Amino acid sequence: MARRASAPWTYAAAGVDRGEVGGALAALRRRIRARVPPGHGRPLSLPGHYAGVSEVDGVRIAVTTDTVGTKVLLAAETGRWSEVGEDMVAINVNDLAALGARPFGFVDTISCARPDVRMFAELGRGLDRGLVAGRCALLGGETAVVPDLVPAIDLGGTAIGFFPARRAPVTGSRVRRGDVLLGIPSRGLHANGFTLVRRLVSKARAPLDRPRPGGRMPLGRELLRPTRTYVAVSEALAGDPALHGLAHLSGGGVRNLVRLGSRLGFTLDAWPDPGPFYRWLQSLGPVADREMFQTFNMGIGFVAVVTPSAVDRLTGLLRRAGVRDARPIGRVDGRPGVHLPAWGLSYRGYA
Amino acid sequence: MARRASAPWTYAAAGVDRGEVGGALAALRRRIRARVPPGHGRPLSLPGHYAGVSEVDGVRIAVTTDTVGTKVLLAAETGRWSEVGEDMVAINVNDLAALGARPFGFVDTISCARPDVRMFAELGRGLDRGLVAGRCALLGGETAVVPDLVPAIDLGGTAIGFFPARRAPVTGSRVRRGDVLLGIPSRGLHANGFTLVRRLVSKARAPLDRPRPGGRMPLGRELLRPTRTYVAVSEALAGDPALHGLAHLSGGGVRNLVRLGSRLGFTLDAWPDPGPFYRWLQSLGPVADREMFQTFNMGIGFVAVVTPSAVDRLTGLLRRAGVRDARPIGRVDGRPGVHLPAWGLSYRGYA
Repeated sequence: MARRASAPWTYAAAGVDRGEVGGALAALRRRIRARVPPGHGRPLSLPGHYAGVSEVDGVRIAVTTDTVGTKVLLAAETGRWSEVGEDMVAINVNDLAALGARPFGFVDTISCARPDVRMFAELGRGLDRGLVAGRCALLGGETAVVPDLVPAIDLGGTAIGFFPARRAPVTGSRVRRGDVLLGIPSRGLHANGFTLVRRLVSKARAPLDRPRPGGRMPLGRELLRPTRTYVAVSEALAGDPALHGLAHLSGGGVRNLVRLGSRLGFTLDAWPDPGPFYRWLQSLGPVADREMFQTFNMGIGFVAVVTPSAVDRLTGLLRRAGVRDARPIGRVDGRPGVHLPAWGLSYRGYA
Repeated sequence: MARRASAPWTYAAAGVDRGEVGGALAALRRRIRARVPPGHGRPLSLPGHYAGVSEVDGVRIAVTTDTVGTKVLLAAETGRWSEVGEDMVAINVNDLAALGARPFGFVDTISCARPDVRMFAELGRGLDRGLVAGRCALLGGETAVVPDLVPAIDLGGTAIGFFPARRAPVTGSRVRRGDVLLGIPSRGLHANGFTLVRRLVSKARAPLDRPRPGGRMPLGRELLRPTRTYVAVSEALAGDPALHGLAHLSGGGVRNLVRLGSRLGFTLDAWPDPGPFYRWLQSLGPVADREMFQTFNMGIGFVAVVTPSAVDRLTGLLRRAGVRDARPIGRVDGRPGVHLPAWGLSYRGYA
């Protein structure tokens, strides 16, 4: 596709057109009319859509599926596989965590051209770390050797969770004006936006085996850092009456907050400095602030929306659960959308 | 890979080496040491491995994941997508059915280079049919637009089921000598072995838009016929004390019976004529009988192992559930392995 070198760098220009995907998905969904017969589970309609939930024999089961996407191409380039193995679990259990569901099972899906023993061993090492952080069991998986379909490798998985007795799904329905947004820092990029990342790095001819300017590890390793797992956050807070909502800032970045309520305002007036890594990445385009915050997590990977009077208590609960870095990043108000006053940014809508 | 034109046509020669996959998977599994903390589900260790099972809050949940594989390339060649859409659900709920689990939810995974509205609408139409036959709800899904990973499309999904009160997983532990094998006919190929199918068809230059010799529909349509869903079989029989085992004849063909017990013998002395389609397909190689029966379903897609005295009663239950074509295809005896006396074939082991 012809593109002027001076055109702004956006995720769409990097080959991913969210509108086109939306149209195709709408066409698919319109065809789905199946209703399950009695006794075959009762699907619950919940806002937010991080995971689907169905009730069977009195237990509510949540399920979500996601792939690591083009981050695997960086794994292939650097020959490092444990990080994306960990991502396979993390990206999925984080979507369960965003609903307050407790993960219990995971199945992996590997489509590849050729199964390499060393690669699979490293994937297994990463999967194991992901399972420990996600507190769930590997219940199965599928390895498809399909060189005609997947020239290198495609990695994904499905996580299943449940709502323990007396814990309701955290849908955001109780979020209200005045609530405080507690941000949980990410550990580098999530497994999102890598089509753009790879084009930026490739355009700048930044070598993966050496640190970026100011970096402390080879760039390849820095880009591959595994997605932080936020299950500990969710487990510490879900079921607490002062917790009003949760958000996982994956694809869509800060726009994910809109999923908590499109009529609410989320003013992020205490967003921490994203730091030198994001500044460097942004400079490679350059990429507009607006695009950075709706593509990457920009330093905050997960958000808990809480009653103002309970901030100290909930921060204490998190600390006792090993999460010592939660911090207020903003508040809920009446101006619909997501606002980052320090960057002069406002978003309406999730996608 | 250099290969003599006169070498026998096997699945391995067509590019899929099961031993290589097994070695890589063993390397992956050796790294998995995670144990779930108390309260995060209790994974049950069941023989058979069609699905993983975990118990949460007293309910046993089964999960399985699978992809449609290279059958999608035939869909792309013919521009027909509803069949593989139906397969996405069928291949997964059939693995739940083989354990006697009742499906309640499904999530789809589509990795593609470009989302096309017509293609997605057809996939949706097929998914809907699969959900109706599988009696489960679409609880979510993931569509990844990853042209750098998947040049065309890769389709998969995950199905989740549960064991209703008083229904135990059907593991085959009660299968014994003298039991009768009831076969349920397939509706054409399952979504397995298509790497070999495509090479055979391509070698023979058989046109997809015309019937094969003796065929009644264009070859493309015949090859694409959606996988039959066997959930009705499982729902009719699971929980009945006279049902001792179930087998889904997907990848591995009749070898899947070994999963019911490696010390038992499965003598298929009444296997029905596979018919002209399989004879024609086989002739294109030619492919050895041994390879045909361990790669394709050869006309029987699902097997119920039952007490001899209950054959009529269970066949009646199946009929009332709309399954009118179950038929005895053999019996369980003491000669370990799977035996097809009419073809002079014997298999030991599943893979």
